[in-house]
Amino acid sequence: MRRGSNQLRVADFNQAVVLDLVRRSRGVSRADLQRESGLSSQTISNITRRLIDDRLIRESTPEGSARGRPSIPLITDPDGAYSVGVHIDPARLTIVLLDLEGEVRLGRQDHTPQATNPSEVTAFIADAVDGLMTEAGIDRARVLGLGIAAPGPLDVEAGLLLDPPQLPNWRNVRLRADLHEATGLPVLLDKDVTAAATAELRSSPQSSTSFVFLYLGSGVGASVVLDNQVIRGTTNNVGEVGDLVVDPDAEQLEWSGRRGGLAAACVPEALVLQAARVGLMPLPNLNDYVAVDDACSALCALASAGDAVASRILERAARRVAVGLGVLVNLLDVPRVVLGGPLWDRLSSAFLPVIPDLVDRELVAAREKVLVQGSAVGEQVAARGAAELVMDHFLAPRASALMVG
Amino acid sequence: MRRGSNQLRVADFNQAVVLDLVRRSRGVSRADLQRESGLSSQTISNITRRLIDDRLIRESTPEGSARGRPSIPLITDPDGAYSVGVHIDPARLTIVLLDLEGEVRLGRQDHTPQATNPSEVTAFIADAVDGLMTEAGIDRARVLGLGIAAPGPLDVEAGLLLDPPQLPNWRNVRLRADLHEATGLPVLLDKDVTAAATAELRSSPQSSTSFVFLYLGSGVGASVVLDNQVIRGTTNNVGEVGDLVVDPDAEQLEWSGRRGGLAAACVPEALVLQAARVGLMPLPNLNDYVAVDDACSALCALASAGDAVASRILERAARRVAVGLGVLVNLLDVPRVVLGGPLWDRLSSAFLPVIPDLVDRELVAAREKVLVQGSAVGEQVAARGAAELVMDHFLAPRASALMVG
Repeated sequence: MRRGSNQLRVADFNQAVVLDLVRRSRGVSRADLQRESGLSSQTISNITRRLIDDRLIRESTPEGSARGRPSIPLITDPDGAYSVGVHIDPARLTIVLLDLEGEVRLGRQDHTPQATNPSEVTAFIADAVDGLMTEAGIDRARVLGLGIAAPGPLDVEAGLLLDPPQLPNWRNVRLRADLHEATGLPVLLDKDVTAAATAELRSSPQSSTSFVFLYLGSGVGASVVLDNQVIRGTTNNVGEVGDLVVDPDAEQLEWSGRRGGLAAACVPEALVLQAARVGLMPLPNLNDYVAVDDACSALCALASAGDAVASRILERAARRVAVGLGVLVNLLDVPRVVLGGPLWDRLSSAFLPVIPDLVDRELVAAREKVLVQGSAVGEQVAARGAAELVMDHFLAPRASALMVG
Repeated sequence: MRRGSNQLRVADFNQAVVLDLVRRSRGVSRADLQRESGLSSQTISNITRRLIDDRLIRESTPEGSARGRPSIPLITDPDGAYSVGVHIDPARLTIVLLDLEGEVRLGRQDHTPQATNPSEVTAFIADAVDGLMTEAGIDRARVLGLGIAAPGPLDVEAGLLLDPPQLPNWRNVRLRADLHEATGLPVLLDKDVTAAATAELRSSPQSSTSFVFLYLGSGVGASVVLDNQVIRGTTNNVGEVGDLVVDPDAEQLEWSGRRGGLAAACVPEALVLQAARVGLMPLPNLNDYVAVDDACSALCALASAGDAVASRILERAARRVAVGLGVLVNLLDVPRVVLGGPLWDRLSSAFLPVIPDLVDRELVAAREKVLVQGSAVGEQVAARGAAELVMDHFLAPRASALMVG
């Protein structure tokens, strides 16, 4: 009985290995699979037949070959499986539907409901996910699950938001259980920065798989990727960098964040406070993240339109963010920094022309120049990462699948 | 020819696997080795015979067994191999002789020569290493090599000190080649913090293999150990944290370091400048690291003797160091912080009573309390790590041994 169960798991593991090889290729023959997996030709034949029957992979058209019978490339069936990724930023809610080929089939962005009761937000997310699946016209039986990227701190194992400073009413919210109840889908919860780093790593060139990802949204956070591994932290709460002092001479803002900290340098609330202080715009209701986010958009638009005061605020933000990035690069000795998150698109035109040189100036002597770039994935990065984590959870071969049971 | 060479390497690899299993045990039978290595009993028999012939391992006395013939435990022969570790702190030069059992057989500490010509220091190190080996009365043919732990930045692959701010005359010094020439030993160069983290990890309880190591010496540096792996950084120059701002309101010292930075908070030069500023002691020659280190010892002794002014300086240093540790823990989400390095023994009595709570206050909400402790290895930590890196280089099984050639 026990042995039979182990055998089944090993079979599942081999199947996952093969599916993973197909997913990561653009067409791979059975002979290639045999060579790369180390499995026998009979096992490959059986597994590929099963995967084709399950509609997870399919045979593609062989390319013309000069001699002999061309081998048939196997490719993933994009409609074989889906996952949904939801990124809860306090101001913006991003949802994507990912297909088995790793393409975003459909996405949407909404204002995050500023409800005092988290259950209203849960209901909103469930509705939005439902709407997205309907709009995509997909077979719902093939949706593997829902991945949630949320601000920390959170208890990933218990599926809890603990006490996120950015979501003041969300103390000890059982987000994973609540969303499972509301959607019927398996739900995976992870930190926003971890999900973002996961998606960014997938779309990175093979040559540079160590980097720091700076997440810019309603909050600021960092994640660290070293040698192809996303660093999660012992409690899965890596990347709290808001209190890192980046400007000892910074003004004291009327808020709870640390004076001169990285959060004070670049989160929308702090930027809007700075803009209001110099009379550039009225102060929005600071308890309304959407209002703050909109005001920050207005500030960025002013800077883009050439307003000198707005531009100076963003230039100063870039200088301060560069100091923070310098700290991370000096500490971790990574060759690359990636900036992303829901706020990044609005800051990039002010930041990108100046920030590589500013970071460079912060590096210790003899440190090689670091590559500073915007996210290759774009605004959906954390939502997409959450969806990819779900795909991996169900489809990728993991040592634990062999170890457990 | 090529195949033969591969076979030899695989044989070496298996031998290294077996030796490693013996090194990490306190007595292991051939049957245990067979089970743990997955090698055949014939292979184990051949390899252990060869290792015994080479005097790397030996048979120990079997413990009494109730029934059957007791199995013979194999243990490393402490005299089977040695390595030498040298830690070059600008003020203190620490040298240890490590035996194959991992014990420090003999060690010494000297003032680092404040020579303007690095070749004088190289000659001094070669003499000191020679003296240590003579004093230990060991078979020099069994010394595998010399490991050097040095302040960064350095080019580990080329064996160069690049431009260490703490060693002003050591620009592009070919330390590895020079010391090889002077000693005749194979030489390995690594960063002080990386060597220290290596030694600390070896002496850590199995339960906590993720930690930040804060190196306190003539300079300050950090290293990061995640899941049993010492993080080296892409260019092997991890851990430059001296510019991390830990006190935005700090005084401006008469030196080149960043105002309010972690270096200004705790390196001897900065502490001595602070002490001189309040009239506690005269300022030593700041270009003489030994004089600065001695003045810092005097400051610490005053604090230990109850001098209120000296105590306040060290208390402030502890507060500032705690802010830096908070940044590292919030970023990396590690459960443990270890303080060590040549300065640590002098600071520990002022730091240890207060620093755990001070670090705790810096942690983001819901971050679990972090364990803050002094090095389990002590003052020789970096020298010992350098010696261990040499042992590993020659004796530990590495995938690359299989890949190369």
